[in-house]
Amino acid sequence: MQDIQNQFDSRNIPIDQVGVKDLTYPIVLLDRENEVQQTVARINMYVDLPHDFRGTHMSRFVEILNEHHQRLKIDTIEEVLRKMKSRLKAEKAHIEMFFPYFLEKKAPVSRARSMTKYECSFTGELDGDVDLVLGVKVPVTTLCPCSKEIAEEGAHNQRSIISIQVRYSELVWIEELIEIAEKSASSPVYSLLKREDEKYVTEKAYKNPKFVEDVVRNLALELDTDQRIFWYKVESENFESIHNHSAYARIEKHKDK
Amino acid sequence: MQDIQNQFDSRNIPIDQVGVKDLTYPIVLLDRENEVQQTVARINMYVDLPHDFRGTHMSRFVEILNEHHQRLKIDTIEEVLRKMKSRLKAEKAHIEMFFPYFLEKKAPVSRARSMTKYECSFTGELDGDVDLVLGVKVPVTTLCPCSKEIAEEGAHNQRSIISIQVRYSELVWIEELIEIAEKSASSPVYSLLKREDEKYVTEKAYKNPKFVEDVVRNLALELDTDQRIFWYKVESENFESIHNHSAYARIEKHKDK
Amino acid sequence: MQDIQNQFDSRNIPIDQVGVKDLTYPIVLLDRENEVQQTVARINMYVDLPHDFRGTHMSRFVEILNEHHQRLKIDTIEEVLRKMKSRLKAEKAHIEMFFPYFLEKKAPVSRARSMTKYECSFTGELDGDVDLVLGVKVPVTTLCPCSKEIAEEGAHNQRSIISIQVRYSELVWIEELIEIAEKSASSPVYSLLKREDEKYVTEKAYKNPKFVEDVVRNLALELDTDQRIFWYKVESENFESIHNHSAYARIEKHKDK
Amino acid sequence: MQDIQNQFDSRNIPIDQVGVKDLTYPIVLLDRENEVQQTVARINMYVDLPHDFRGTHMSRFVEILNEHHQRLKIDTIEEVLRKMKSRLKAEKAHIEMFFPYFLEKKAPVSRARSMTKYECSFTGELDGDVDLVLGVKVPVTTLCPCSKEIAEEGAHNQRSIISIQVRYSELVWIEELIEIAEKSASSPVYSLLKREDEKYVTEKAYKNPKFVEDVVRNLALELDTDQRIFWYKVESENFESIHNHSAYARIEKHKDK
Repeated sequence: MQDIQNQFDSRNIPIDQVGVKDLTYPIVLLDRENEVQQTVARINMYVDLPHDFRGTHMSRFVEILNEHHQRLKIDTIEEVLRKMKSRLKAEKAHIEMFFPYFLEKKAPVSRARSMTKYECSFTGELDGDVDLVLGVKVPVTTLCPCSKEIAEEGAHNQRSIISIQVRYSELVWIEELIEIAEKSASSPVYSLLKREDEKYVTEKAYKNPKFVEDVVRNLALELDTDQRIFWYKVESENFESIHNHSAYARIEKHKDK
Repeated sequence: MQDIQNQFDSRNIPIDQVGVKDLTYPIVLLDRENEVQQTVARINMYVDLPHDFRGTHMSRFVEILNEHHQRLKIDTIEEVLRKMKSRLKAEKAHIEMFFPYFLEKKAPVSRARSMTKYECSFTGELDGDVDLVLGVKVPVTTLCPCSKEIAEEGAHNQRSIISIQVRYSELVWIEELIEIAEKSASSPVYSLLKREDEKYVTEKAYKNPKFVEDVVRNLALELDTDQRIFWYKVESENFESIHNHSAYARIEKHKDK
Repeated sequence: MQDIQNQFDSRNIPIDQVGVKDLTYPIVLLDRENEVQQTVARINMYVDLPHDFRGTHMSRFVEILNEHHQRLKIDTIEEVLRKMKSRLKAEKAHIEMFFPYFLEKKAPVSRARSMTKYECSFTGELDGDVDLVLGVKVPVTTLCPCSKEIAEEGAHNQRSIISIQVRYSELVWIEELIEIAEKSASSPVYSLLKREDEKYVTEKAYKNPKFVEDVVRNLALELDTDQRIFWYKVESENFESIHNHSAYARIEKHKDK
Repeated sequence: MQDIQNQFDSRNIPIDQVGVKDLTYPIVLLDRENEVQQTVARINMYVDLPHDFRGTHMSRFVEILNEHHQRLKIDTIEEVLRKMKSRLKAEKAHIEMFFPYFLEKKAPVSRARSMTKYECSFTGELDGDVDLVLGVKVPVTTLCPCSKEIAEEGAHNQRSIISIQVRYSELVWIEELIEIAEKSASSPVYSLLKREDEKYVTEKAYKNPKFVEDVVRNLALELDTDQRIFWYKVESENFESIHNHSAYARIEKHKDK
C-alpha cells in the first residue's frame, strides 16, 4: 500500500504541531513513596512536521503511549518525548496530559477521612532542551474582605479554583502545590465535614478574608521563596456567590527576569 | 435519485424519536409587551417513525424551523409541532429549545442597571394533545442555616442554580418564574453591584438563611397557590463553598394527583 | 451544637430527592473474572425527605460512599442503597454513577492492541423494590446509505455515539453491551489502527451503510432476543460530517408492554 | 464605607491581570454594511494592578460594558480598552469576547437557504499600543487521502473545526475568514441540504481529500498572500470517524519573522 503521508509536499510550509488530541487513556502514576495511583488522562501528543513531508504517522503516537501508560512519572515524560522525536523523525515533540488526582484528607476537627479530587496536568516539550510544566487546580473557599468590612453581619464567600503551574530545577510534588494553594485562600474545602468541622471552616474563612488579588499574591510570595521553582503562573477564579460571573486574577513570573 | 428513506423496512420496529439534535439557530422571541428579544437557541426536533419506513427526511425539520425562527412565542411552538407532524407524516412531534434570556435588573440600593442571563427552555410534544413545558434556570445566593447557627461569626454561602419547569392552563411569563425563584433563595444575584448594594445583599443573605431543602419547599409553596400551573418540577443545586460538590434537592408535583 | 436539620418543618411538603451531586470519587470496579479496574466516577446520591423534617444530613452520604468505593460491583449498589435508606431514615434511596471504563481491543488486521474508553453508568433506586439500570455509551462509525446510493463515489460517514441502557433479571456485562453496539453500526472505532487496519475499516463501513434509524433498530432486534433484559432504551447520535448538528434516534421498550 | 480595595498593599507584588470572567451579556455587532446582528457573548475583562493597591474595582468593568454592549464593532473595542485603563487607573487593559455569529448560506445545488453558526472571538490588549486579534471557528468536512488511496471503495471522513486567528493592519471581515476556511477543507458543511445537495457535497469531498496537515497548509498559503494580515494562527481539529480521538495540526506565523 502506498504511504501517502511520506509523499513530498511542494507547498514549502513546515507545520508547528501535528498529532493526536483528546485521546482518553488509563494511566498509572508513581507517587511520592513510589506507590501507584491509577487514574484517567486526556492526552494530546504533537510533533513538528518539516516542510517537505505531506503527513505524520498518527498511529505511532498511540504505540508510544501504549509502551508507557502503565508506569508514568514526571521523568518518564522526557523518555516519551524522545521516542516521539525519534520515531516520528521530528525536531520537536510536545505532550499534554490532564488527569484527576486524589488525596485523602482529614476533616479539621473530627479527623473524618475523605478523598478530594485535584485536576492536574503535565506538559512537556522537547526542542533541544526539555521543558516540563507541572500544573494543579485546587478548589478552595474565599471570603470577601470588602463584604465583611461593610456588612453588619456575615460576608459573601464562594468556591474558587486556584491554578498553579510551575517549572522547576528539582522535583516538586503535586501535594506540595496543593498545600501552598490551600493556605493562600480563606479555607480549604473537604468532601466530608461533620458538624464540628463545618463550624471550624466557617469561622476560619470568616477570620481569614481574601480577595482574588490576595490569593494570587499569597501564592506568589510562597513560590518566590521556593528555590526549586524558576517559573510560575498562578491564577484564581472565584465563582462569586453574589454575581453570575467570576472574579479572576493572574500572576506569571520568570525569576531570572 | 432514489429515495432510500422511503424504502419499506421489514424489521417491524417503530422508532419513538428520530430527528435533528443540537442545531444552533438564531431565534426571535416575542415577549410580554409583544416586543422582541433576539437570542441563540440550541434546538432538538424529533418525530416518531412507523415500523414500515426506513428513514425520516431530516432536511424538513430545518425547513420548518426556517419558516418560524424569526418570530417565536410559546403558542407558535404548537404550530411548529403541527407542521412537523404533517410534513414528516408522523403521529407525534417533539421539540426542545434551550436559550439564554436577558433581563435588565436594578441593583437594590444604587439602582444601577445591568443585564442578567437566565437559561430558559421550551419543550413541546404533540401526541393527540399538545403538551408544553416552560423552564427557567435562575442563579441565586444561598446561605447555610446550619453554618450560621453553629459558627460564632459568618456563615458559608454560595451561588446556586434554581430550576423551575411548569405546565400551565393559562400563560405564565418567564419573568414571573424568575421572580418566584429569586424570592425563594437567600438573595438574588446581580451583574453590577456598587458598594452600598454589596452591603445590602450580604446582610440580606445573612438574615435569610436557606437550606437547599428550604429553597425547593418555598418554590413549591408559591407554585401550589398559582391556579394557572397544574404541574411543576423544581430543583436547586447549591455549589457549596465548603465542598467540591453540590447539594441538590427536587420536588415534582402534578396537582391532580 | 444544635441540629438544625432535625428541626420540625411546618410547610408540610415532602421532598422527592435531596442529597449530594457531582461528587467525583475514585472507584474500584470488580469485573468479569473478579479482577479489578480502577477508575474515576461522578456520583449523585439522593434520598427522599418526609414533610416534617427540615433537612437531611449530607455528610452521611459521603461516609457510606467511603465504606464502599474501593470494591464496587453492580450488586454492591443494592447494599449502598439500603445503607442510605437506613442511615438517613428515608423511604427511598437513589444513586447515579458515571465513569469511564476501558477495554483493550485488537485492531482488525494487524491485531495491534490499544485501550478504548466507554462512558458507563449505574443507576439504582430503592423504593420497596430495587431498580437497577446499567448504561454504556459506545463510539462507532456510521456511513450514510442515502449518500452512498446517490453519489457516484464515496459516502459521508462520521463518529456516532450509541447509548444503551438496560434493566435485567440476570447479570449482563458491560462488555456484552459494547459488542451489541459495535455490530449495530457501520464499523467499530479503535484508538490504534495501522495502514492495513484503516483499509479494512474504511471498506467495512462502506459495505455496511447505516442510517441512525438502522442503528437503533438493529440494537432493538438484538436486545429483544435477550431473555435477561426486560427493559431497554437505545439511542444513537451521529455527529454528521456534512452538517454542524447531529442526527438522532431513540427506541425505549418495556417487554411486558 | 471604607474602600478596602484602595488600601495600601505591602506585599510589593504587582498583578498581571485582574477582573471579571465569564460574564454572559447580550451584544449587538455592526456588520459589513453597518447593519446589526444581535448575539450573546461570554466576556472576560482584565487590567493590571500596581503592587501598592490591594484590589481593583470590579463593578467598573460592568459599567463600561453597559455603555457599549449595544453597539460593538472591532474598532469600538479600542475605546472600551481606553476606558478600562482610565477608570481603573491601570497601565494595561485586556478584553476577550466569545460569541456565535450566524451567516445565511445557500445549499450548493438547490440553493435552499439556512443559517450556519460560527464561533467567533475578539481579543484586545492595550499596553502602550493596541493589539487586536480576530478569531473564527469554522465547521467543515475533511476526507482522508490515505483512506481513499488504500481502500477499494469509500474513504473515512468527518466533521472538523478549523480555527483562524489573525492580526491585521487593515480591516478583515469574519466572512472573509470563513470563506478561506471553507475552501481549505474537503467541503463546507450546511444546516440544510436537499438530496441533490447531499450528492454534490459527498462527491465534492471525495474528489477533494485533505489531511489535517493539508488543511492548515492551505490556510497558511491563503493568509500568506493577504497583505492586510501580519500574524496568524491556524488550527484544524478533525473528529476522526474511525477513532474516538481527534487529529490536530497548527501553524502560527508572524510575517516579519
